Amino acid sequence: MSAQAFAEPTPHFTPGPTVPGSDARRGRLHTAHGTLHTPAFVAVATRGTVKALGVGEVRALGVQALIGNTYHLTLRPGPELVRDLGGLHGFSGWSGPWMTDSGGYQVFSLGAGKEHGVGKLASAFPGDGVPRVHGTSLVRLDEAGTRVRSIFDGAWVTFTPESVIRTQRLLGADVVLPLDECTSPYHPRAYTQAACERTHRWAERALTTWRETEGQGPNPGQVLYGIVQGGVYEDLRRHSAATIAGMGFPGIAIGGSLGRTKQDMYRIISWCVDALPYERPRHLLGIGTVEDILEAVRRGMDTFDCAGPTRMARNGSLLSLRDPSTRINIRASRFRRDPSSVDPTCDCPTCTQHSRAFLHHLLRSGELAFYPLATAHNLRVMVRTMATIRSYLDAGRMPALKDLADPS
Amino acid sequence: MSAQAFAEPTPHFTPGPTVPGSDARRGRLHTAHGTLHTPAFVAVATRGTVKALGVGEVRALGVQALIGNTYHLTLRPGPELVRDLGGLHGFSGWSGPWMTDSGGYQVFSLGAGKEHGVGKLASAFPGDGVPRVHGTSLVRLDEAGTRVRSIFDGAWVTFTPESVIRTQRLLGADVVLPLDECTSPYHPRAYTQAACERTHRWAERALTTWRETEGQGPNPGQVLYGIVQGGVYEDLRRHSAATIAGMGFPGIAIGGSLGRTKQDMYRIISWCVDALPYERPRHLLGIGTVEDILEAVRRGMDTFDCAGPTRMARNGSLLSLRDPSTRINIRASRFRRDPSSVDPTCDCPTCTQHSRAFLHHLLRSGELAFYPLATAHNLRVMVRTMATIRSYLDAGRMPALKDLADPS
Repeated sequence: MSAQAFAEPTPHFTPGPTVPGSDARRGRLHTAHGTLHTPAFVAVATRGTVKALGVGEVRALGVQALIGNTYHLTLRPGPELVRDLGGLHGFSGWSGPWMTDSGGYQVFSLGAGKEHGVGKLASAFPGDGVPRVHGTSLVRLDEAGTRVRSIFDGAWVTFTPESVIRTQRLLGADVVLPLDECTSPYHPRAYTQAACERTHRWAERALTTWRETEGQGPNPGQVLYGIVQGGVYEDLRRHSAATIAGMGFPGIAIGGSLGRTKQDMYRIISWCVDALPYERPRHLLGIGTVEDILEAVRRGMDTFDCAGPTRMARNGSLLSLRDPSTRINIRASRFRRDPSSVDPTCDCPTCTQHSRAFLHHLLRSGELAFYPLATAHNLRVMVRTMATIRSYLDAGRMPALKDLADPS
Repeated sequence: MSAQAFAEPTPHFTPGPTVPGSDARRGRLHTAHGTLHTPAFVAVATRGTVKALGVGEVRALGVQALIGNTYHLTLRPGPELVRDLGGLHGFSGWSGPWMTDSGGYQVFSLGAGKEHGVGKLASAFPGDGVPRVHGTSLVRLDEAGTRVRSIFDGAWVTFTPESVIRTQRLLGADVVLPLDECTSPYHPRAYTQAACERTHRWAERALTTWRETEGQGPNPGQVLYGIVQGGVYEDLRRHSAATIAGMGFPGIAIGGSLGRTKQDMYRIISWCVDALPYERPRHLLGIGTVEDILEAVRRGMDTFDCAGPTRMARNGSLLSLRDPSTRINIRASRFRRDPSSVDPTCDCPTCTQHSRAFLHHLLRSGELAFYPLATAHNLRVMVRTMATIRSYLDAGRMPALKDLADPS
């Protein structure tokens, strides 16, 4: 089945032409709660909030959309409560576009990821193929679905392709995702293939439940994306992308293990995009850094989410607009007396009002004020970086990493 | 020595006439970094920051001034560093008025307060005069000054009347305070009297160092207030107020133990104010609640600081504009599904954008976003409450507690 058979436009996405010498494209993604200008970074709001910030600040930073997590929101506060309070939009106060991830990644990170000691990329580990950290899986998985231990009380919670759709109908995000099985780079090919085929069967079951629940929940304008799996194997990735696209999802996400190096990741993205219809929006799950986003944009990806910028902020690792390839470890003692702002070119409330020395003091002293200030800065850098990328694409050029540096 | 002998105006304070039937007055307190409209609440920023908020938000809430703490800032980041970065104003980014407390209260809370198990008010303890909680003092105190163990590494740090002034010259707050000895309500009268007299001698030594260091440090416009002690004893309080006022301080703070009940506190304030010159501004250290502030305003106090509103916020105890005598414990399960805002009459970013249910979820889930949101609300309530009090005084009326309720 050729992906081209499903190349008709979807009303919710308007991609521009590719920029010469790349697969990059500008686009507009229309949701029931506003339009995203793509390429776009979707800020992570796992439990319904960007960590450390209220929605007023998130909005003021120029963030276009948030992504919550079905696993976490199922445990707390529970989807019925969210539904009763107006869905994620009403509950959280974020009235712009919402996405929800399915919880498939949590099934991985609490299961095989824990056993193998890996995350989305295994690049932190030496290339001998042997995972270094072994934990005990908190997951049971079979054809029916998965059971995952609650991070709160250890109780087993069941997630099936059907339940995850029903839950996301209640949460009411604008873009939602089906349950998938992420594999680790240490899974053998045979397991990866079996998991990929299971993810396809789960996708069909998700679509069935999706149709059955049409119009239910607080947001009748929801769309369901498909998720491409297939690990690090070219044939599996191409097959998965064509299969998922062939099911007619109005948007496609690329999930799962993206290999051991950045080059692995970029290759995997290209294999998938090759097999995807041009007219459908493409979301890259859980990536990433400015460099990775740029390379994924070059290969035709439209939207991105990643906990990295906000998590790094809380650890004191601050992004730089002036040099997108560096991070400032504000805990380092060399910043103790540094009166300059984190980034002289940044217009965020942190950089315009506070020095590196003060932020260093806040982090070293355990002051809570550090977390919103650091988070606001990193999100603002992501927002401005995406805007710079879009400006280049608007002008018909694919930027290089150095073009994203603001030397002012 | 009569306080009236020192009744000449000081250039930095302009009190209005008292409001009939009370000792309340409106005033303007001019500092080197702006004018406070009094009665005013000074927000606590112990280590140079309001906990959980950046200065942009604090400013947007309408806060007029901050108070830092000499003991804490001496330990981290150290006064020389603060001086080198432009004093507290430059270091923190708060360019409005700053006060610094001397650290005398920390000498108490880590010393006698710890041994006696009491804070500023002993009212949480039954009236049998026996302290219930005994801890080990982290303080040594004699005529020369005090040594206090660092909360970070246990090292002994020396604070003398002279060193505390020199430190505050480096910190550069607009209004600073001399080292004093706070007593507990469980100290016998003889000890309280001896401590009070020692505080007076320390005040003289502080004044000497103050004159010697004139013009040193980043803020040549600093003023030094005196601190009245004397515990719960009328004659000691009156004597202390007259003595401190007689030393010529351009402003007076009331410190130390304020008894076991609110009535004790109000009486103690009245005794002190009786003996203070009308033309000098009066600051009440470490108080308090809306009710206590109102009663202190009625008795002629001008400015207030208290960690309560921000600390309560972090514990989930939210103030109400609609009913100043209540607090909302947002952790309570009855708010789990409550779609209303914390306070329908509040215009803070928290109340205009988030529901009680969402804040309950944030606190229960341990989300960092709770802390800035809760802190902003409680500070906004304090700011608006003080503005309401000033409006009444402007109209020549002393408000009652019920008048502060905004029923809208």
